[in-house]
Amino acid sequence: MIDFKWNQKEKAIARTAFDKAFQNECNHIIEAAKERLNNLSDPKEIWRLEDYLSKKRKQIDQKYDYRYSVLIRVFGVLVYEGWIEMKDLEGLKEEKLQRIRFVAEGLKD
Amino acid sequence: MIDFKWNQKEKAIARTAFDKAFQNECNHIIEAAKERLNNLSDPKEIWRLEDYLSKKRKQIDQKYDYRYSVLIRVFGVLVYEGWIEMKDLEGLKEEKLQRIRFVAEGLKD
Repeated sequence: MIDFKWNQKEKAIARTAFDKAFQNECNHIIEAAKERLNNLSDPKEIWRLEDYLSKKRKQIDQKYDYRYSVLIRVFGVLVYEGWIEMKDLEGLKEEKLQRIRFVAEGLKD
Repeated sequence: MIDFKWNQKEKAIARTAFDKAFQNECNHIIEAAKERLNNLSDPKEIWRLEDYLSKKRKQIDQKYDYRYSVLIRVFGVLVYEGWIEMKDLEGLKEEKLQRIRFVAEGLKD
């Protein structure tokens, strides 16, 4: 991946978009957890919720990596998965936006 | 611990009481999980729910041990913790009931 430089304005945009995606995905997990809790047919199925949360935690720890060296790919994934939209990244230089779109599009295949 | 013999009738009583305690405790965990989910001040606190469930799962795996060699102690703990009452064990021989009461009382100190 190309090692882009990020200026202060871009860093602020990136941070805001990153945090937004994180909040959105956590909120989604909370809603999914509530739904699972409200639809248990057997009390011991509670452990499936633990399995679900444990899996999500690992995925999230792995996905939300705010190193500038990997951020383009991270944003591509977050856009592909729908946690943010390309408009949340407006203000980044066009070469970065192109690359993020490219990653997001590539994941569709 | 004394190695008691369990006749068929006692085995049936023990199984019912054991399952009742398990259901009661799982239901309690479900309610606690719902309360935690409904009172999150920050989305990322969802991981505290995972920590809670993970801890409870380990405790439950350890506690609900249906080997006859340890069942007296298990029932003592379940009575002490309130997941069943002594009356759920009615029909067990008096020497077992005494021993279970003794374990439950001992845990209070």
